[in-house]
Amino acid sequence: MTDEPRSGPERKADVLAKLNAPVADAWVATADGDPYLVPLTLAWFGERVLLATASKSPTGRNLTRSGRARIALGDTRDVVLIDAVLDETIPVGESGAAGEAYAEQNDWDPRTAGSGYVFLALRPERIRAWRNESEISGSLVMRDGVWLV
Amino acid sequence: MTDEPRSGPERKADVLAKLNAPVADAWVATADGDPYLVPLTLAWFGERVLLATASKSPTGRNLTRSGRARIALGDTRDVVLIDAVLDETIPVGESGAAGEAYAEQNDWDPRTAGSGYVFLALRPERIRAWRNESEISGSLVMRDGVWLV
Repeated sequence: MTDEPRSGPERKADVLAKLNAPVADAWVATADGDPYLVPLTLAWFGERVLLATASKSPTGRNLTRSGRARIALGDTRDVVLIDAVLDETIPVGESGAAGEAYAEQNDWDPRTAGSGYVFLALRPERIRAWRNESEISGSLVMRDGVWLV
Repeated sequence: MTDEPRSGPERKADVLAKLNAPVADAWVATADGDPYLVPLTLAWFGERVLLATASKSPTGRNLTRSGRARIALGDTRDVVLIDAVLDETIPVGESGAAGEAYAEQNDWDPRTAGSGYVFLALRPERIRAWRNESEISGSLVMRDGVWLV
C-alpha cells in the first residue's frame, strides 16, 4: 500500500466498486440506545443500499424505529463508512426489480427466506473513504446525499 | 473453509488469538441515539479490551456516557462479536502496564499522542464467534462475563 493519497474521483470509484462487488459484506451498526452491530450482505441498486433481514431482527427493529444506520465496507485499513437513512422497507414477496438485483449480486436469495424477511432500502447521506493516515484528509466523498467528487 | 463447525474450545482459542494478534483492528460500535462505528486498534490486557482514542472523539464521548460498546473482530465470514462495558478510562500519561502492553502489541503508541488521549478499558460480557451458517448454533462462547467453554 502506497502512502500517496487517492484523488476524490478514485475514492468514489473504489466506493462504488465495493458497493457493486459480488457478495458485498458489510458491518451494519444500528442503535436502540445500546449499540448493535452485525455483518450483513448488501446490494447496491438505484443509488440505495439494500439489506435483507428478518423484520423482527434487532437490525430490522432498530432501523424501523430510528431510521438510521452506519455501515462499514472493506477492512479496517481500507475503510468505507456510510451514514444512511432508511428510505423504504420492502417485503421480500413484493420486491420486484430490487429483489432481482439483490439475488443477482449475492450468494443467497432472501425472497426464498420466508415472509418475515424484508429488504431495507437505505439512502446514503454521508460517505467517507480512507486507507491510511495520509488519506484522512479528503476522505469525505458524499455529504447530504450528494457526491462531492 | 470447511463446513465442520469448530468446537467451543476451538472458538475460544480463536477469539483469544484475534484479541492477542499484533495490530488487532476492530470495528467499534457505540451509540448516542444514532449509531456510531469506527475502526480502532485494540489490545488485550488483563482480560480487558483496551482501546485508545481522544477522550473527546465520538467513541470516547459515547462510551463515557453510555458505558457500552459492541466490537467486531475478524471479517464478515470469520466473525467475533463482543458486547463490552466500560470498566475504566485511563489517561495515557497514567497508564502504566496497560499502556506498555498496548504499545507492545500495536504499531503505534497512544502515550505519545498527547494529553487528550485515553485508554478505554472494556470488560467483555458476551462473545459470539462464527464463520458460517453451520456455526451459528454454538456461537455463544461467553455470557455475563463468563467463558462458557
